[in-house]
Amino acid sequence: MSWLDEIKWDEKGLVPVIAQDKDSGRVLMFAYANREAVALTAEKNTAHYWTRSRQKLWHKGEESGHFQNVSAIQFDCDGDVLIYQIEQVGGIACHTGRSSCFFRTLLNDEWVITDQVIKDPSTIYGSTNKP
Amino acid sequence: MSWLDEIKWDEKGLVPVIAQDKDSGRVLMFAYANREAVALTAEKNTAHYWTRSRQKLWHKGEESGHFQNVSAIQFDCDGDVLIYQIEQVGGIACHTGRSSCFFRTLLNDEWVITDQVIKDPSTIYGSTNKP
Repeated sequence: MSWLDEIKWDEKGLVPVIAQDKDSGRVLMFAYANREAVALTAEKNTAHYWTRSRQKLWHKGEESGHFQNVSAIQFDCDGDVLIYQIEQVGGIACHTGRSSCFFRTLLNDEWVITDQVIKDPSTIYGSTNKP
Repeated sequence: MSWLDEIKWDEKGLVPVIAQDKDSGRVLMFAYANREAVALTAEKNTAHYWTRSRQKLWHKGEESGHFQNVSAIQFDCDGDVLIYQIEQVGGIACHTGRSSCFFRTLLNDEWVITDQVIKDPSTIYGSTNKP
């Protein structure tokens, strides 16, 4: 039995994935992956997901250049969630141009932006030659 | 509009929640919460979830004593995932008696247990008087 068979895929054939900075421990992103995406991630050590909005395999960084080098894959007790331990190329995981997608914090019953934009998203997308 | 209305609840009225140790940064758990659970978490600063297997509100620690003191709630760019930044009472988040639910790592195409059991689960559950 393959290690991939041990993953409990949901009714859509997906598994939730937490992308975590392997050094700082910061959670950078949350997305879903299908079997092909997880297999490719393990084989090539670069994060692949399944984009639910675009309904396709997504090699993170293919548009932005912000690839994620994967150093480890972790698995939870229930067998239905993964963590990719990553190094974030360019230091930007979020499509808003921020380090992490989790840039809002609840303060006095309001979501407050607690992270700055590192790079204007309009300069990130539309080019495949970003560092 | 309440901050709770800004959360994009899924078709079951749930939102995925990542529980992260506020000091070490380790991801300890992944679960789901409904509106009531998130509201209670923010109000009482102790983690609440919705258990999909038991279909009920779940005050983490109610059986094990392993409550999670919540110091911050973070929110992602798409508005559909939360992080609870927590202090894990007892140092055990997982029902297997381990620190984290993510105790398996992919090594040479196998899921290898890379975390030890801190406490026998049979001694954790069945008592509500654990520290």
